[in-house]
Amino acid sequence: MSLPKSIHISEEGPREGFQFEKGPITTGRKIEFIDALAETGLDHIQIVSFVNPKAVPGMADAEEVVRGIHPKEGVAYTGLWFNEKGLERAVATGRLEIKGSLFLSASEPFLKRNNNRTNEQVEAEAHRMIELYKEHGIPVERCGVMAAFGCNFAGDVPVERVTSLIAREVAIAQEHDVKLKRVMLADTMAWGTPYTVKRLVGAVQDRFPEIDISLHLHDTRGMGIANAFAGLEMGVHYFDSSVAGLGGCPFAGHKGAAGNVCTEDLVFMCDEIGIETGIDLEKLAECARMAEDVVGHDLPGSVMKGGSLARLRERIQAGAS
Amino acid sequence: MSLPKSIHISEEGPREGFQFEKGPITTGRKIEFIDALAETGLDHIQIVSFVNPKAVPGMADAEEVVRGIHPKEGVAYTGLWFNEKGLERAVATGRLEIKGSLFLSASEPFLKRNNNRTNEQVEAEAHRMIELYKEHGIPVERCGVMAAFGCNFAGDVPVERVTSLIAREVAIAQEHDVKLKRVMLADTMAWGTPYTVKRLVGAVQDRFPEIDISLHLHDTRGMGIANAFAGLEMGVHYFDSSVAGLGGCPFAGHKGAAGNVCTEDLVFMCDEIGIETGIDLEKLAECARMAEDVVGHDLPGSVMKGGSLARLRERIQAGAS
Repeated sequence: MSLPKSIHISEEGPREGFQFEKGPITTGRKIEFIDALAETGLDHIQIVSFVNPKAVPGMADAEEVVRGIHPKEGVAYTGLWFNEKGLERAVATGRLEIKGSLFLSASEPFLKRNNNRTNEQVEAEAHRMIELYKEHGIPVERCGVMAAFGCNFAGDVPVERVTSLIAREVAIAQEHDVKLKRVMLADTMAWGTPYTVKRLVGAVQDRFPEIDISLHLHDTRGMGIANAFAGLEMGVHYFDSSVAGLGGCPFAGHKGAAGNVCTEDLVFMCDEIGIETGIDLEKLAECARMAEDVVGHDLPGSVMKGGSLARLRERIQAGAS
Repeated sequence: MSLPKSIHISEEGPREGFQFEKGPITTGRKIEFIDALAETGLDHIQIVSFVNPKAVPGMADAEEVVRGIHPKEGVAYTGLWFNEKGLERAVATGRLEIKGSLFLSASEPFLKRNNNRTNEQVEAEAHRMIELYKEHGIPVERCGVMAAFGCNFAGDVPVERVTSLIAREVAIAQEHDVKLKRVMLADTMAWGTPYTVKRLVGAVQDRFPEIDISLHLHDTRGMGIANAFAGLEMGVHYFDSSVAGLGGCPFAGHKGAAGNVCTEDLVFMCDEIGIETGIDLEKLAECARMAEDVVGHDLPGSVMKGGSLARLRERIQAGAS
């Protein structure tokens, strides 16, 4: 095992959760929740997406949310966008960290359903977006592959398809004199297992040794934490995750399927192994319980229910002394 | 990775679940559920425990349950007991696979709460029980260590404590000319991580190369499947698990904490990696959904909600042809 000494977690709970939840959540509660997350030690929180409010009503108040938060120093608040209009809205807030990135999908059918695009269209847009980023002086260092482990509509994804998509992204970037530093492998529909995570991460490391890997994992089939540990064992030190396991897969076979890999469960595992995250687990577990209150139903996170071990150790120590 | 080609799963859902659930579950429904489990390919199902009905009311109908099932050929139905009286009740049913085993606990405080015993008392009983097993011609091949990864009341458990307890068990067995073949490492209160699973399994393998290891994992803090994969990577091929994640930890810090590692999620992972279990995942997922109906509330299993990939692959194939 060559585990990293520390990892960096990008929290996506607010964006993944508020976009997925059916029930209306007031702007005030969203702001309260984001402000609480910023007190946990998380330094990267994706709080909104700038998408069509008709398609994603839960994000109609994106600007209001960004305006309402009380930014904490040292915390990067980010948003998600897929096109020029979304980028302009994000920039206009004046309060978000704006970084450019490129995305391709290992599954065309998924891209069609999720973004109503072909990879060819996405590539063409990528060229335009990179130029736009450059005009605005926005750094572009990241790329990603959606559905990198498999797709509910296209099936298994060969490793070579992912590596050739990354090569395509590197080539697109190079055409604009942009050097990519990080690639995000997204298990969008939760097809990955620890075995395939190790296989794909290893192949990407071998072919692109100069590019860091980040993992965006879903827990729809219960593999989230196991897949994260597989990533850790491969030396991955960037992870996306969602507090309380907020989010969910609209393409899952059954209702109530789990969402993104759960941040506090991931932090718990790292704490126990001795991998630094910079995050206060107890405060984060409080946020997870707050998330259940905000969305009005149980969420899948385990540690917020099972309790941390640090607390038990303290109690045992106190009892013994 | 040196993953095993196949593993053996011992299903503990009926015993763990029916003993833990508050609500009364009718004997008829228990029987129906156990009969359904026997149709999935599971060949080892722990269906009852013979304990004091005042302490565990959910097991008061143990004999009735055993009498009511429709035994399927090739399936070993087992029960759990802690003392001579429990053993006699199990033997009297005439329908259970009866095998002897020895147990010690890595935590005295846990043993006190769970069994109202000291390890010294348990050792003394072990000697009597082995003699009793021998009188009845009951094979004794297994031992186990409870709380092998840590304890809510005693804290972390050093690896050396576990290995010395196993040595103690081997010595007890030898005094009666019994040779132990398998040791179960139980993460009774879910203190394990994939890192500590690898560390402890490795240490036990090094010191007792002639003894097989089985893992009894809990998912209270979301590490269950990750810990199982860690075990697989260490070559472990015996696992206890619970369909739908039935069970739970009465010592967990918060209500609603997850139970044992979930059988169908474990089977899913093995299917995807190509490790044989002999179990039909779709039938098992049906049983998991039945379990939710039987206990009357949601259970933590993921694949029963997220859906298997085999089904999706079939659908994609059918659509493509």
